[in-house]
Amino acid sequence: PPSPLQPPGLPLAPCRSFSNNKIQVELDESSGVAMMKFKSPPVNSLSLEFLTEFSISLEKLENNRACRGVIITSAVPKIFSSGLDITEMCGKSMEHYTEFWRAVQEIWLRLYGSNMVTVAAVNGSSPAGGCLVALSCDYRIMAENPKFSIGLNEAQLGIVAPFWFKDTFVNVVGHRIAERSLQLGSLHPAPEAYKLGLVDELVPEEKLMEKAAAVMAQWLALPDHARQLTKTMMRKAVLDRLVAHREEDIKNFINFVSKESIQKSLRKYMEMLKKRK
Amino acid sequence: PPSPLQPPGLPLAPCRSFSNNKIQVELDESSGVAMMKFKSPPVNSLSLEFLTEFSISLEKLENNRACRGVIITSAVPKIFSSGLDITEMCGKSMEHYTEFWRAVQEIWLRLYGSNMVTVAAVNGSSPAGGCLVALSCDYRIMAENPKFSIGLNEAQLGIVAPFWFKDTFVNVVGHRIAERSLQLGSLHPAPEAYKLGLVDELVPEEKLMEKAAAVMAQWLALPDHARQLTKTMMRKAVLDRLVAHREEDIKNFINFVSKESIQKSLRKYMEMLKKRK
Amino acid sequence: PPSPLQPPGLPLAPCRSFSNNKIQVELDESSGVAMMKFKSPPVNSLSLEFLTEFSISLEKLENNRACRGVIITSAVPKIFSSGLDITEMCGKSMEHYTEFWRAVQEIWLRLYGSNMVTVAAVNGSSPAGGCLVALSCDYRIMAENPKFSIGLNEAQLGIVAPFWFKDTFVNVVGHRIAERSLQLGSLHPAPEAYKLGLVDELVPEEKLMEKAAAVMAQWLALPDHARQLTKTMMRKAVLDRLVAHREEDIKNFINFVSKESIQKSLRKYMEMLKKRK
Repeated sequence: PPSPLQPPGLPLAPCRSFSNNKIQVELDESSGVAMMKFKSPPVNSLSLEFLTEFSISLEKLENNRACRGVIITSAVPKIFSSGLDITEMCGKSMEHYTEFWRAVQEIWLRLYGSNMVTVAAVNGSSPAGGCLVALSCDYRIMAENPKFSIGLNEAQLGIVAPFWFKDTFVNVVGHRIAERSLQLGSLHPAPEAYKLGLVDELVPEEKLMEKAAAVMAQWLALPDHARQLTKTMMRKAVLDRLVAHREEDIKNFINFVSKESIQKSLRKYMEMLKKRK
Repeated sequence: PPSPLQPPGLPLAPCRSFSNNKIQVELDESSGVAMMKFKSPPVNSLSLEFLTEFSISLEKLENNRACRGVIITSAVPKIFSSGLDITEMCGKSMEHYTEFWRAVQEIWLRLYGSNMVTVAAVNGSSPAGGCLVALSCDYRIMAENPKFSIGLNEAQLGIVAPFWFKDTFVNVVGHRIAERSLQLGSLHPAPEAYKLGLVDELVPEEKLMEKAAAVMAQWLALPDHARQLTKTMMRKAVLDRLVAHREEDIKNFINFVSKESIQKSLRKYMEMLKKRK
Repeated sequence: PPSPLQPPGLPLAPCRSFSNNKIQVELDESSGVAMMKFKSPPVNSLSLEFLTEFSISLEKLENNRACRGVIITSAVPKIFSSGLDITEMCGKSMEHYTEFWRAVQEIWLRLYGSNMVTVAAVNGSSPAGGCLVALSCDYRIMAENPKFSIGLNEAQLGIVAPFWFKDTFVNVVGHRIAERSLQLGSLHPAPEAYKLGLVDELVPEEKLMEKAAAVMAQWLALPDHARQLTKTMMRKAVLDRLVAHREEDIKNFINFVSKESIQKSLRKYMEMLKKRK
C-alpha cells in the first residue's frame, strides 16, 4: 500500500520501464498506470524515428494487461511537442513521404482509438502535431503558464491540417471554434485554450503530474470494459473515416508536399526556426 | 380568464385527468398543457409496467387535439426517476428482455419525437434512464439543490449506454462533454449540470412548477405547426437511426444482458441498493 | 504606406467602387479589402432585385484577384437586414417563387462558400435571412446595443427555416441552442447573441468598422491558399447538401408558400409591419 507520504502518481516498485532513444516509459504495475515521457530535445519533434518509437511503445502498453492507463508528458522543458518534423517533409523521396505519413496516421489511430485511459499532461507548448497528440487523449491538463500555447497552426505555415486532425479538433471544441482556429492557424495561450475547451483543466506547473495522476485514478475507478466500449462508441465514426480513406490521404499528402511552393515555404520556415535558436 | 391571483401553471377547471398505477396525468384544456407526474415510489424506476403506462399516457396526449404541451415531473420526493428498473434485466427470459427493451425504445421514440412541447421539471435526482427522459424533452428545468444529480451513469454499473442515449446526450451537451461524462458515468450535481448545459435552467425547488408553466407558456405562444416541423428537422436524423436499427439494438441488449458477468454485476448493484435503504 | 493618423479600415486611394441601386461596394486595392454596404431603405430586405445585385457583387469581388476579403455592413441606421422580402412570397406566380428561391440559395452558396475572408459588421437588427447572411460569414462583430437583435425567427411567422439555414446555424451555435432558438423563433438581443456564440464579438457602435478592419487584417495576415482549403474542408459537407437537394428544396419552398394558410399568415404579418411604420 502506498505510504501516506508518497505523493500520488509517483510510481512505486515494482515497476517496469523501457526507454528508447526518444521516449521513456515507466509502468507502475501496482496502479496499472504508465508514464510516457517525450525526451527528444530540443523540441520533441515527431520525426519518423520518434513516431516509430511512439507507436511501438503504445502497442507494448496496449498489449500489456497490467497497463490500464497512460499519462503522456514531456521531459524537455517548455515544450510538449513541436509537432511533425518538417525535415521529414523536405527534399525526401516519395517512398519516404509515404512511410512518414503512414507513421503519422498510425500514431493517431493508436492513440485516438486506445483502449487505455489516456491523459495528456501538457507541460509546454504544443503546436500542430503536438496539439493532435493532446487532442487524441481522453483528458488534457495543461500547465497554466500563458507562455505555453497549443493549437493546430498549420495554416500559419501555408499548409492544411488533414481532415482527421480537423475531425478530432471539432469533436473537442465544436464547429465554430474549430473553423476560426484552423483558418487562423491559432496558437492559443494556455488560459485561452482552457476557455475554448481545447484543454480540460489548467494547473500550476509544479502540480501538473500530481493532478494527472489524480485524474487518472478517477478514470481508473471505473470498470474498464464498459468505459472502453463507450469510448469506441464515441470515436468510431471518426476513426473509421481515416481507415476508409487511408491510402487516399497518403496520396493527398504526397501531392501536397511535393509541390515546389510548399517545399519553398517549408524551407523558409525551417530557416526561420534555425535562426531563432 | 385566469384570476390575477391564480399563480401561473396551476391548472384551472375544466380539466381532464387520468391516472394509472404509476403515472398521474392532468390536462388543463384551457391552456392545452398536461401535467404528468411520476408516482411510483420509492424511486420511479422505469419498469416494464411503468414504461407501458408512460407510453399509453403520451399516446393519449399526443392524439388529444386539446393538448399542446406536457410538463413531466415527479410526485416522489427527491427523485425524478432512477432510470431503468434493474429487476427487469435480471434472471428473466429472452422474451421478457425483448419486450422490456422494445418498451424502452418506444418511450424514447415517442418522447424525443413528440409533436407536443415537452418540459422536464426535474425535481430530484435523475440517473441513467431518468436522465434520458429529461434529455428527450425540449427544455429542462432543475431544482437548484446540489444534492440532486443527473447524468448517464451507466458506465459506473459496468454497462454501456445505447447509441441513441449517446446521440441524444451529444445533441444536448456536445461531443467533448458527452465523451467524458459517458466514460466516467458521471452524475452531475444540479449546479454542474447547468454549467455543462445538461439542464437549461436552475430554480429554487419551490419555484420549479411555476417556472415550468411560464416556460411552457412561452413555447406555446408560437404557432404549433412551424414549431413541430422545426423540431422534426432537428431530431429526425437521430430518431431515424434507431428506427433503422431497432431489431439490431434489441439483439445487442439481449446479448449484453445475458452475459453472466453482467448478470453478476447487476445483482451486486441491486444488493447494494437494498442495503442502502 | 498608411499615414499613422489614418484609422485602420478606412480605404485609401486607389480604390475601385461600384454601386448599384441597393448595394454599394468599395474595394481598397492596397489592402485587398472590399466594403459592402446594404443601402436599401427602409430595412434592407432581401428582394429578388437585392439578391441579384448581392450575387453579382459577390461574384465580381470573388473573381477580382485584388480582393481578398469583404466586410459586409449596412448603410441604413438600426437595421443590418430584415431578411427575405415577404412581398416576393405573396400572391406571385410559381415561376416567380422559383426564381426568388433560387436567388436565395445562390446568395448562401456564394457567401458560405466564398474564398474571400468574410466579416459581418452587424450594425443593426438582423432577423431571419439577415441573420443567415451574418451566419454565413467567417466572423461576426455586432454593435453592443441591446436594442439590436439577431436570430432565425421564422417560426414566429409560422414558417420553417430551410434545412441549410439550420445547418449553418448549428455549425455556429451547436445543436442544443439551435434547437431551442429555432423552435422559439428567438430574436436574441446583442448581449445574448454574444453569450450564445451567435456573434463572435460585441463592440460599441462607433468602433464597429474599426474593429471589423482590424479583424480583417488579422485574417489576411495568413496565406490565402491554406486558409481557403481549410474553410472548404469545414464547410463543404453542408454546402454539398444543398447542392445535392437544390431542386427539391425549391419545390418544398413553392409547396409551402403556395398554401393558403401560409399566404394568409404572411399577409397578416405584412399588414402588421405596415401599421408599425
